[in-house]
Amino acid sequence: MSIFLGLVILASLLAICYAAINFYSVKKLEEGTDRMVEIAKEIRLGANTFINYEYKVVAIIGAIIAVVLGIVISWQGACAFIIGACMSAAAGYIGMKIATYSNVRVTNTARTTKKLSDTLKVAYKGGSVMGLCVAGFALLGIFLVYLIFGYGLGQINDVKNGVEAINFLGLEAPFSMTISCYSLGCSVIAMFNRVGGGIYTKAADMGADLVGKTEAHLAEDDPRNPATIADNVGDNVGDVAGLGADLLESYVGAIMSAAILACELFSRKVNGGIVFESAFLEKLLIFPVAFAALGLIACVIGIASTLLKKKLSDNPHMELNISTWVSAGLTAIFGLALSYYIFGSNAKDAYAAFKFGWVSPWIAAVLGVAAGIIIGAIAEYYTSYDFKPTKILAKASIDGPALTVTQGLALGMKSCMAPVLVLGAAIFGSYLIGGIYGISCAALGMLSFVATTVSVDTYGPISDNAGGIAEMSYLDEGVRKITDTLDSVGNTTAAIGKGFAIGSAAFATLSMMNSYLYSYTAPEIDATAINLNVLNPLILAGAIVGAALPFFFSGMLIEAVAKAAEQMVEEVRRQFKEIKGLLEGKAMPDTKSCISISSQGALKEMRVPALTALIFPVISGFIFGAEFVGGILLGATISAIMLAIFTGNAGGAWDNGKKYIETGAIKGHGKGSPAHDAAVVGDTVGDPLKDTVGPSLDILIKIMSTISLVAVAVFSKYNLLDWITGLFN
Amino acid sequence: MSIFLGLVILASLLAICYAAINFYSVKKLEEGTDRMVEIAKEIRLGANTFINYEYKVVAIIGAIIAVVLGIVISWQGACAFIIGACMSAAAGYIGMKIATYSNVRVTNTARTTKKLSDTLKVAYKGGSVMGLCVAGFALLGIFLVYLIFGYGLGQINDVKNGVEAINFLGLEAPFSMTISCYSLGCSVIAMFNRVGGGIYTKAADMGADLVGKTEAHLAEDDPRNPATIADNVGDNVGDVAGLGADLLESYVGAIMSAAILACELFSRKVNGGIVFESAFLEKLLIFPVAFAALGLIACVIGIASTLLKKKLSDNPHMELNISTWVSAGLTAIFGLALSYYIFGSNAKDAYAAFKFGWVSPWIAAVLGVAAGIIIGAIAEYYTSYDFKPTKILAKASIDGPALTVTQGLALGMKSCMAPVLVLGAAIFGSYLIGGIYGISCAALGMLSFVATTVSVDTYGPISDNAGGIAEMSYLDEGVRKITDTLDSVGNTTAAIGKGFAIGSAAFATLSMMNSYLYSYTAPEIDATAINLNVLNPLILAGAIVGAALPFFFSGMLIEAVAKAAEQMVEEVRRQFKEIKGLLEGKAMPDTKSCISISSQGALKEMRVPALTALIFPVISGFIFGAEFVGGILLGATISAIMLAIFTGNAGGAWDNGKKYIETGAIKGHGKGSPAHDAAVVGDTVGDPLKDTVGPSLDILIKIMSTISLVAVAVFSKYNLLDWITGLFN
Repeated sequence: MSIFLGLVILASLLAICYAAINFYSVKKLEEGTDRMVEIAKEIRLGANTFINYEYKVVAIIGAIIAVVLGIVISWQGACAFIIGACMSAAAGYIGMKIATYSNVRVTNTARTTKKLSDTLKVAYKGGSVMGLCVAGFALLGIFLVYLIFGYGLGQINDVKNGVEAINFLGLEAPFSMTISCYSLGCSVIAMFNRVGGGIYTKAADMGADLVGKTEAHLAEDDPRNPATIADNVGDNVGDVAGLGADLLESYVGAIMSAAILACELFSRKVNGGIVFESAFLEKLLIFPVAFAALGLIACVIGIASTLLKKKLSDNPHMELNISTWVSAGLTAIFGLALSYYIFGSNAKDAYAAFKFGWVSPWIAAVLGVAAGIIIGAIAEYYTSYDFKPTKILAKASIDGPALTVTQGLALGMKSCMAPVLVLGAAIFGSYLIGGIYGISCAALGMLSFVATTVSVDTYGPISDNAGGIAEMSYLDEGVRKITDTLDSVGNTTAAIGKGFAIGSAAFATLSMMNSYLYSYTAPEIDATAINLNVLNPLILAGAIVGAALPFFFSGMLIEAVAKAAEQMVEEVRRQFKEIKGLLEGKAMPDTKSCISISSQGALKEMRVPALTALIFPVISGFIFGAEFVGGILLGATISAIMLAIFTGNAGGAWDNGKKYIETGAIKGHGKGSPAHDAAVVGDTVGDPLKDTVGPSLDILIKIMSTISLVAVAVFSKYNLLDWITGLFN
Repeated sequence: MSIFLGLVILASLLAICYAAINFYSVKKLEEGTDRMVEIAKEIRLGANTFINYEYKVVAIIGAIIAVVLGIVISWQGACAFIIGACMSAAAGYIGMKIATYSNVRVTNTARTTKKLSDTLKVAYKGGSVMGLCVAGFALLGIFLVYLIFGYGLGQINDVKNGVEAINFLGLEAPFSMTISCYSLGCSVIAMFNRVGGGIYTKAADMGADLVGKTEAHLAEDDPRNPATIADNVGDNVGDVAGLGADLLESYVGAIMSAAILACELFSRKVNGGIVFESAFLEKLLIFPVAFAALGLIACVIGIASTLLKKKLSDNPHMELNISTWVSAGLTAIFGLALSYYIFGSNAKDAYAAFKFGWVSPWIAAVLGVAAGIIIGAIAEYYTSYDFKPTKILAKASIDGPALTVTQGLALGMKSCMAPVLVLGAAIFGSYLIGGIYGISCAALGMLSFVATTVSVDTYGPISDNAGGIAEMSYLDEGVRKITDTLDSVGNTTAAIGKGFAIGSAAFATLSMMNSYLYSYTAPEIDATAINLNVLNPLILAGAIVGAALPFFFSGMLIEAVAKAAEQMVEEVRRQFKEIKGLLEGKAMPDTKSCISISSQGALKEMRVPALTALIFPVISGFIFGAEFVGGILLGATISAIMLAIFTGNAGGAWDNGKKYIETGAIKGHGKGSPAHDAAVVGDTVGDPLKDTVGPSLDILIKIMSTISLVAVAVFSKYNLLDWITGLFN
């Protein structure tokens, strides 16, 4: 055992150290002209101010949750929750820091070297800090939880020996509860980062576009537009900090749900009808953690294999792919070795437990990776203008905004089927291979090289920001061209990343849901007989109500963005009117007031949706009990997956449809034509859908299943319905 | 028993006779000026031509299905299917006929009498023909099926005596299968009527609006717009024939699912753990049919209570409400008596079976009615400009089309929660009262006064058409004002009607789904132990794939509408350009070519979505078996309910938001302002959502569950997965 825990801390520290090296190696670069320094400072200040405020709000909410957990669940749970929250917050904070340092340095590298390859290196180095921190801090936290509570305080031995840990309310508080709480800590931070960041970035973006582009016909990032700086701040707090916290949470969720399931299997020793040995079960508990650690080491090598090259090529797509494929390939090789090392030593048991023996968890993990890649590719098909759907959408713009919106909605809706077929096949396949533990392994596989995925994803917004700074600093066209090339590659990687994000969220949630179902049924019950029966009206009613929740939540988020964007529109209109000479470029806009509108809007509007996600399942549980909540989780997961795919692909296609028109590919309907105006409407409608709603839905389902898993111990014993039923009988 | 069957045929013939009386009483009225006669003829011709073509297509598909049913299921099933299809087709056909007769007579009554009250009477009389035919033909078909197959051929006795009817393939072909096939016949017609009609009407509407309103700034129904006649034809084939077939199908679905469930209960004798007596079970089989018959008699009285009045008041809202409340009130009273008559005679058994004894089925039915009314009221809250949400939406138009669309999407999404909470409560409540039979009773309650609901709903499009004819015939403002008043009342009733439609579809489907679950599990298994287990990966994968289906289906429909609308746009643009003097009112447009575009588009585009709904569950079943299809039904039902509410309310709110602006309520942003243009964009986006997608989704889930119920006997025995698994073991 200790060897695996050593592996975890080794991988974690390796990643964090490498992140630190990259951090300082980027930071020591030159920032460029005075104007560039000034703009970068403004962006940095805006991002810092927002994230400080945001973290203050979150700290208060987190403290309240920790106290409640301490009282109701266990002090170990409360501590694990705090550790999780700190790790997630730290990763988001450092990622945002490095993003606001590297943006201007990317611009400056493009300006001084005029080389795509050198610029790419700086941008990817910046991105790698975020990627490495996400995985590094996640594993550091897991290490601490396993070390302190699992081994130090003997909770793992309790599980192994069948000792029931009871808290002072008489409820069970075993190791699985402690790791659920750790996972919850990460979820809560992720929720606020995603929702807050998502509202911020899109309020600024929509505000900037609605007046700047549509009314005043300014270009993107025009320095005369007062909302431009806020828009760039938004990229950092939304696309960087938000994305990082999101994927950290998925990563932790995937690892932990496999571990929780293993804990539950301990008390049941049955997986799909197959009875396990206790010694074998311990292996199930350590496999996911060790797999993640090896995956992280593979990622460090993968990232280094690109960054340590003396000279990068001029093909960013290829360079990033090398990183990704090296990371994924090594993860697969390491994983195979691990699977053999852990399960191969007792081949007979492994064959009894899994369809294909010791290699089964590995096959399930690879299945997860394959599903993630295919889902990403499908997302690219539907959203890239190299393919038919987006081209058709772009052509619809000729007939005006109404048909653009209509066709985009149709595209998004149609695009739900293909990824879901892949998801369904992966669920069924991984189950056949490894039972419900196999489903967790598939999630694990998808997320095992998250460090590289996030690095590649973060490089996009950094390049986007670099382009903004170039534009606002009046640098020559060549600079902007380099950053635009990087940015456009970033758009493709982002589309694939979104496919991965929703795929992994779905798997992690299903895995959590399985744990949930186990945890409220008595251990004597065979896993195959656990009954989430649709003839049970509580489950059915729960599923229907649960399915409405993602819609309700999305509606709230869109409204929040629209509300803040409307304020922004008014402010920008006011400045154009009142600041004399602004539109002629003779006066400076008041960017601070726009930053403040975005910040205030996001901080104010993020609370209700985020808290709804947290509180809804708990309150439902206390009223209608555990079965109803089981139904809610089922319904919410299903409808959130659809909505996330729908919003992500519709939004992406509108965005790229607009870009397709801007390339001049449709003759007679180029930039500035009515068709382009219609396409801008589509893009604006899609903005909050793809960047606020879609990503937040990933977290919604994870946080709901995590909090239900934590709270079920309480509400399965104490709920209103049982009490009333008790009165009648 | 025979007394109840007598009741059914009595009610059916009463309704059909009253419909015939009203039909001829409307038809004998004057049509008005030559111009009016001419326009009405054109509309009638367009509608007839389309529906003849449509029925030809459907006849071929129906014949194929009937042959397959005859071979695979039973000849009784094939005959019942044909009876169902004929009844549904007849109701749709007659309804469309009377609508195209009454529209011009409504206009003429307004023109000659200049009285709202007299005009209302003609419009409502026209609508009542449709309403009475829907319920009358549905019951006529049920009477035939019960008489011929149930009693005549002894299928009911087989059920009672536990005789297993086997077809020549060795599959079970009992009475429940025969009535499922009857239901399927109604579903298939409804599907094509709804989808075909929905595409037709919205292609014409969008085409007329996109060029006429947005580009040429013509008013609604302007005779210079070549697409105006097609738009009016669309109202008849979509809103009248489509709606009628849809509600007939829901009505039959609600009655039949209760009956099917009763048949299944015969072979199990258990409902929620309670064991039934066989004598008691027979009552369960006859209660829904008798309840529906009494409901129809109540509706005849309710409709007559308005139509037979010498003098109606000038308040159409009140007059229609009188009809509705008399029908609903009498249904409730008759139902209570029936419940006592059927179940009260053996009070002990009833108390053993149901929570509150003999009155329980009645309580569940009333619960269904209440849920339907509340869901309708919620729809009105979200879509009427008397309330806050639509007012806010209207104000967003000031900031342009992008925010209008965004806010509308948010409104639609948020509006999913409230109706679903009502639905969940009704499901849980009706189950508590009467087990899964209770859920069927709730569906029954909702639909028992369908004759009046459809009459009131049909009166709307008739008035709308009458207004169009007035506009196109250059009649004076006063006529148009009368029809507009009638039309606006129609909009409110339509919103409530949509709530009813989705609520009843949900209930009918859940009820079908329960029957489905029963039908593929062995009779020995206790109902409470039937296992639709989410830990079963086939169910889970099925639910996720199933949830994608309504999205995919909706995407296809929207695309179909957009495609046809684009052709229409081109044709209208062409005519404006090529026909000299058209815009100045000196030349006539070529309306026939527009009618032909709508017809061709609808006929071409309706096949794939409609057939997808039919074939998808069957193919899935033959590949992955009955459990997977169970998952699909669950997922599809849940996501279709959300999408139907979302699209219905968003579309309704956009429509009324536009109307709110047209009233001039927002100062400085009235008709013709940029805000109004933005609102028109919202309205146009909403059109296919609320009138094509939403209503079709209701049928999608019903047809899927019906066909699965029919096919499950086959694919639960023969499917690829079982075969492959067999090879491996």
